[in-house]
This record gives sequence, structure tokens and C-alpha cells, in this order.
Amino acid sequence: MRMRMTLAAATTLAAVALLGWQMGSAGTATLAQEKAAYKAAADPLPSWNDGPSKRAILSFVQDVTTEGGRKFVPPAERIATFDNDGTLWAEQPMYFQLAFMFDRVKALAPQHPEWKDKEPFAAALKGDVKGALAGGEKGLLEMMAATHSGMTTEEFSQTVTDWIATAKHPKTGRLYTEMVYQPMIELLGYLRANGFKTFIVSGGGIEFMRPWTEKVYGIPPEQVVGSSGKLRFEMREGQPALVKLPQVDLIDDKEGKPVGIQTHIGRRPIAAFGNSDGDQQMLEWTASGHGPRFCLIVHHTDAAREWAYDRQSSVGRLDKALDEAASKGWAVLDMKKEWKTVFAFETK
Amino acid sequence: MRMRMTLAAATTLAAVALLGWQMGSAGTATLAQEKAAYKAAADPLPSWNDGPSKRAILSFVQDVTTEGGRKFVPPAERIATFDNDGTLWAEQPMYFQLAFMFDRVKALAPQHPEWKDKEPFAAALKGDVKGALAGGEKGLLEMMAATHSGMTTEEFSQTVTDWIATAKHPKTGRLYTEMVYQPMIELLGYLRANGFKTFIVSGGGIEFMRPWTEKVYGIPPEQVVGSSGKLRFEMREGQPALVKLPQVDLIDDKEGKPVGIQTHIGRRPIAAFGNSDGDQQMLEWTASGHGPRFCLIVHHTDAAREWAYDRQSSVGRLDKALDEAASKGWAVLDMKKEWKTVFAFETK
Repeated sequence: MRMRMTLAAATTLAAVALLGWQMGSAGTATLAQEKAAYKAAADPLPSWNDGPSKRAILSFVQDVTTEGGRKFVPPAERIATFDNDGTLWAEQPMYFQLAFMFDRVKALAPQHPEWKDKEPFAAALKGDVKGALAGGEKGLLEMMAATHSGMTTEEFSQTVTDWIATAKHPKTGRLYTEMVYQPMIELLGYLRANGFKTFIVSGGGIEFMRPWTEKVYGIPPEQVVGSSGKLRFEMREGQPALVKLPQVDLIDDKEGKPVGIQTHIGRRPIAAFGNSDGDQQMLEWTASGHGPRFCLIVHHTDAAREWAYDRQSSVGRLDKALDEAASKGWAVLDMKKEWKTVFAFETK
Repeated sequence: MRMRMTLAAATTLAAVALLGWQMGSAGTATLAQEKAAYKAAADPLPSWNDGPSKRAILSFVQDVTTEGGRKFVPPAERIATFDNDGTLWAEQPMYFQLAFMFDRVKALAPQHPEWKDKEPFAAALKGDVKGALAGGEKGLLEMMAATHSGMTTEEFSQTVTDWIATAKHPKTGRLYTEMVYQPMIELLGYLRANGFKTFIVSGGGIEFMRPWTEKVYGIPPEQVVGSSGKLRFEMREGQPALVKLPQVDLIDDKEGKPVGIQTHIGRRPIAAFGNSDGDQQMLEWTASGHGPRFCLIVHHTDAAREWAYDRQSSVGRLDKALDEAASKGWAVLDMKKEWKTVFAFETK
């Protein structure tokens, strides 16, 4: 009987974790189901091998949830923040939001005949990614402004929703939402089942993530922190609208991450997860609070199942933060050794 | 038996609602208790008279929580936003944050001998509020910068915590946290018990509210939206710190309220509560979404128990929004007629 219950619980857990897709719609009720499933599961992190990272996570969660224990943290203060690109989903061969941007340049080209002769748009339209990015930050900001502003927040959200439902990753041919790390999906659910509130704190665009994070990660829009542009409230055809402006509001990267955390969350996380130098300040900010703290860096070491890169990479460079992890004792996850599964589609 | 249970439930409800003070610390557990108490209570809004506002609230909540009903709204989308000054707590004879600011000017004066001869500080130090505010926005921003920036977010938070624990309202002699409206405390709890997520969206300072909103309203820091200044991440004595800068980041008032809502929450509320023209755009934004919507304006009509003011008031002016409420059919709460109790201390 005991075994049957555990099996049933494990099945429920797998269903909840693998079919995270359905999480968002049911809201509170599903969170309760998620909690029950994780509490009953024999192994709450089945896609993690028994390694130092998994043991450190389990031990930390045990510590902060043990009532009366020396390291107990009240549920309200159990804030965990996650970088997105390279931490929750892949980021190679380029940040997925750039793929979205290039697709938008192509989609909008008919309304901009001048782009044919104007860089970086001309290169982008020929599918020449390197050429389009050769203009550096200035060219990138031009393309971002052209594709990420001028419309209402609701129009932009619909565009993202349509794109994410159909666009495919250039290497795997999978939907981008299938390029999420199965072990991290389990970790998010495990933390929530233990009273944590999980937040995304990403350099990616806040409005680019919000339309799908609830379905994919179980993280609602109000728990997504990201880079943002300014907004203007105005009347459009007699209806109130919020229009996306080309001016930058927050670059939620490096020093911007603790700023984004304070602005949106208003308290310091007790756990933070990242994978690059862009996450260094978030990890420092988290680690330097009082009481028990947990910081982890995802180290991309698996060239076969994913990608292997760190100090020399132009995408997700991990250099200074890797040194600091060693000196400060932050956990460094070896993806190749410590993850049994990387993507859920591997096991199908 | 039935009656005894109802009485017990009502007692629990009263304990939860009146002693909201204890809410924050226990987090999730207390939210569960709160839900149970409200569900079991015979009357979830005991400080409200049976009037049009109470009936409209009960009917709206019934509609959006009836599964299978035409107006059902999934829990994840049950977002309710509340203005603070004049909606959740009083705002006369001046916004309470101004009282804090004047007290800070006095406390910091020894470090600023030059203030004795410099307006608006000189007037503020003499206790001449009118004189100190005579300089208009420029003088006010100078005093705000002097009292609300330069320190770390944690230092500022501690200053607010100390002040709010001791400062007294000039007319009632009560703590400012006792100047909250008992019917609104009940309403917040009632909405949460029905799956709503409650947010503050206030023109007041976000960092001024966060240190006490969880205890007083059951609203955690991450659900507080307010006006904010820019922050800078830096190392102070080898430790990471967030320093409050004198530059304005967001004025969360009028057109700024829908902007603050989108930036922090990322979805449109289905219910919004305000009391002044500063809330008009938040109410418009809320009302113009698809599906069932609820908008309410607190009309200050009770000169005996609170204050009576609207179109001519310099604090919390309610003029255009009152006209729009009439034309759009938003609920307008008549405080004198519809609230049995205004402040909890009345009944003690």
C-alpha cells in the first residue's frame, strides 16, 4: 500500500512537472496539487543525479523549512530568484529573444521598404545574423526599438504568444518552450512545494517573458522581473492603452539585477540561480544577506546534450562569477555530470 | 450547533481581521487560516452596512468565483488593486508620508546647520507646515531628496519601521497604522479568501509602504506598487548595498498608475479601489478590460468619524473621477452611510 501510494505520487509529480504546460490556467488549485505531489514524491528532483548540487539544494531546503530549527526561515521570506537565459532555458546559438527580434524584422519588412538598403536591417532580412549584429549595441537597439515599441502592451503580448507557439529552435527543431531544462522545472516546483515564491530575474525583456512563463515555469507575470522599456498611458480609439516606447527603463543585468529585485520584490532573495557574469551581482546581493543563503551557478559543460561554454563565450560568458563562486563557496552545477536529463524531449 | 459554529467562525474572523497586525510574520499558514475564517464567517464584511457598495462587492465576488458560471474568472487572474492614501488609511490633514518627511527634517537638522536659514527647511523646522509647502513642487522635492535618498534601502526601511511604530496622528493621537479603515481590512481579507491577489498601487513611496504593509494589510512587499526613486548597486565597506538616489524613477499617480500596474503586475486588474482623481486612470484601465470588472471610489462623507471632502480638497481631490464614476456606473461608497465602523479603535 505504501509503495503504491509512492508510485502514484511519483506519477502525479511527473505529470505535474513534465506537463508544466497546464500549470498556469488552473492557478491556486494547481499550486495545491503541485505541493501535494512534491510532498508525497520519493525523489522530488528525479532528473538530478545524486551529486553535490542536488545534495546542497535538499539540505538547504530542509534547513530553512524545519520549524524550530536554527536556520528556519518563515515562508514569507522564502524568495528564490532565477535567471532565465542559460539557467531555465537554453541560450545558444543566440539568445532566443534575438531570434524573435529577427523574425519580427522579417514580418514587419513589407511596411518598411527602406530596410532593404539600411543596416542592420538589410543583413537581418538576408538572414545574416552576424552581419546584423556587427553594428554593435547601436544597431541592436535600433532593431529592438523597431520590433519592441510603438505597439500597445497587449498587441506585443499577442505577437509573442503567436511566435512562441510556432517558432522552432535552429539546431533541435524544437519549440523554444521545449528548450527548458527539465531539472530546473522540477527545482521550481520543489521550492514552491516548500513554501518558496519563485521569481525570474532576467536580462531578457519582461514583456517578452510574461506571456508564457506561467504555462512553462508556473511563474505568473507578477513574478517576472526583466529588462523593460518605458510605457505611456494614452487613449487609443476611445480606449485606454499602454504604449511601449523606445526608451529603456531598466537593463536588468549585472548591477541592474539587484535593482530590479528591490524594485519589484522589495526584499532580498534567500536563494538565487544564475549561469553567467550577468548574474554575479544578483548572487552577491543574495549571498550577503543575514541568515541561510543559497547560490548556484549552472555551468554549461555538456557539449553532447546541450552546449559547453564559459569564459570565452560571447553568449552567457561565465568568467568572473565562476572565480567568485570558487572563492565564496557558491554551488557550481556541472551540467554533464549532475543532470540525468537536460531536456524533457530526450526521454520521449 | 450550527449557530455555535457560526459564532466561533465570526470570532475567528474578527480575530484575524482586527489583529491583522500579526498577519505578516506567519505567511502562508496565516493566509490559510484567513481563508478558512472568511469562508466560515456568516458575514465576511461585518463593518459594512447593508448598502449598495457591500451588495455590489458580494455580488461581484460571487460571480467571478462561481465555477462554470458565465462570469467565472480563474484565480490567477483575480488581481485587485488598492490605492493607499484615503482608500486604505486616512490622508488628512496631510498625507502621512509628509508627516514622516517633516519628522525626518527635524531629526536630520543637527547634521545640516544651514537648514536654519534655508527654505523650505527653515519653515519645516519651526513646525510651519504651510510655509514649508509654500515653495510648491520644487521645495517639496528638495525635502524629499534630503530625507529619502543618500542612504541604503535597508537603512531607509529601518527608519520607516522606527517612525511608524511611534509617530502619532496630530488629530486622533493614534499610531498611523491605527488610522486604517477597518472595512477595507475586512475587504482585503475577504478578497484573498476568494482567491484574489491584493496589491497596493499608490502615489506614496514604495519604500515608505513596504516595511509595514504586510503586518497591517496582509500585503507583502512584492505586492506593493508605489512612487519610486532610482537605485544604485554599489559596494559599501566591502558589502553590496542598494543606495537610494534623488532621481525620480516612477510617479505612481494618475497616468502613472496603469504604468506601475503593468510594470509590476503585468496583467490588468479585474477590481480596483481608489478615492481621488489620482486613481482615475487606474479605474479606467481596470474597467476597460474584457470580462467582469469592479471599480469603487471611497467618497469621504463623514465629517464626524473621519473627514468630509471631495471636489475642493487640496489633499485627495475627488472631482473628475466622481463625474466619471457617475457616467460609467462605478460604485461610489458613501462612507458615512455605508460603513458601520471606520477605525477599529472606535469600537474599543
